[in-house]
Amino acid sequence: MAGYIAPSTGRAVRAVLFDTFGTVVDWRSGIASAVAAFADTHGLTLDPEGVADAWRARYRPSMDRVRSGMRPYVSLDTLHRENLEPVLLARDVDPAAIPAGDLDALANAWHFLPPWPDSVAGILQIKRDFIVGPLSNGNTSLLLDMAKAAGLAWDVILGSDVSRAYKPSPEAYLAPAALLGLAPGEVMLAAAHNSDLAAARSAGLATAFIARPAEYGPRQQRNLAPTADWDVTATSITDLADQLAVARC
Amino acid sequence: MAGYIAPSTGRAVRAVLFDTFGTVVDWRSGIASAVAAFADTHGLTLDPEGVADAWRARYRPSMDRVRSGMRPYVSLDTLHRENLEPVLLARDVDPAAIPAGDLDALANAWHFLPPWPDSVAGILQIKRDFIVGPLSNGNTSLLLDMAKAAGLAWDVILGSDVSRAYKPSPEAYLAPAALLGLAPGEVMLAAAHNSDLAAARSAGLATAFIARPAEYGPRQQRNLAPTADWDVTATSITDLADQLAVARC
Repeated sequence: MAGYIAPSTGRAVRAVLFDTFGTVVDWRSGIASAVAAFADTHGLTLDPEGVADAWRARYRPSMDRVRSGMRPYVSLDTLHRENLEPVLLARDVDPAAIPAGDLDALANAWHFLPPWPDSVAGILQIKRDFIVGPLSNGNTSLLLDMAKAAGLAWDVILGSDVSRAYKPSPEAYLAPAALLGLAPGEVMLAAAHNSDLAAARSAGLATAFIARPAEYGPRQQRNLAPTADWDVTATSITDLADQLAVARC
Repeated sequence: MAGYIAPSTGRAVRAVLFDTFGTVVDWRSGIASAVAAFADTHGLTLDPEGVADAWRARYRPSMDRVRSGMRPYVSLDTLHRENLEPVLLARDVDPAAIPAGDLDALANAWHFLPPWPDSVAGILQIKRDFIVGPLSNGNTSLLLDMAKAAGLAWDVILGSDVSRAYKPSPEAYLAPAALLGLAPGEVMLAAAHNSDLAAARSAGLATAFIARPAEYGPRQQRNLAPTADWDVTATSITDLADQLAVARC
């Protein structure tokens, strides 16, 4: 069978799985839009991008409590909803003064983030020759809502609530591979974050870096370039598609 | 939000999940074709439809050992592969005389079954307004191979290896609903088998009967008609799509 052989693993890649927040969708613009609408509805003065950044900044520490076992598994939906409250409090907005349904709706904006301009077409192109799906810390229902709204043509969606593990824990990479009936080396992680790729490589996966230099806004400092010899380095998902197509014999 | 309200549950259905073997794909024809090719390769005289029927007949009892807890969870792939051997032995074919890879390949035919003529179009039509996916005893990789080969445009694939439960156990219906973030009554099972629908209804799901009068060949006796007042009774998946579209306000 003709295929793309990953240099790092020597295996033919069968599935290309994608980090989603930042790699496939533009969380910062999507959340800022939702925050702007929320502020308008409630007559609040909020800096939408600042709220998006502060909300996102709480993601990793809150997840690390689950990853370390300090806290039993809860979904990313739960963490997003919880983390919204201190973000508002820090801006002198009392969450208790806002109807809970409106806070829930704002937290639900993480389900409906806009794709980067190349995501829909790139995923469709890769889907012709590979299994495509997210490999995200998002829960299944979040990833499903996102896919249906954005038109992401995933073959399969296995959220972190299926593996009950958060990246960068090895299990978060190994459980999806096992459910796909594949060896780790037959799975490629495509991600905009070097740390995610490093963990995937440690777990035995092939790796592709997708540059997303505006993910964190105009002053982004990190993840502007690959920090290791990932199997592929691409400027977009369509570029990744083209490189995988060329590399197939 | 306009939607289809299931009479039995009074809830708006958000996801239509499908039994696969018999309901979406024609396992008997697909397996018979694979058996015919296998017999030809190995110079064997086998009745392809008879082998398909005998192989399928071992499915339920082998699964019941897992369902009852007599045996720890193993995937349907494992059961299909194991069950092939007594089927061959009963026809005086010694599996030990056949290369194991050829037996594996024959068992893998369950991943590549042909859809009924209305399945692809009907699922696409229902997908416009609902989440669509399989709700099958198949494992995720089997359902994924089937979907890619047949062109079934599922939004999400959660195999029995995700819930680690086999239908008709209640958990097999409830675990997918929970992963979709839905109440059981927001999920409809579409199936060609009354017993599957009865178990789904007991678990709180909405139900649709799809008539597949040739699933078991020309002399089929069971499941020719609905045996209860399922929410919808349809002659095909496209008919189900039309009925759901009409019933949406």
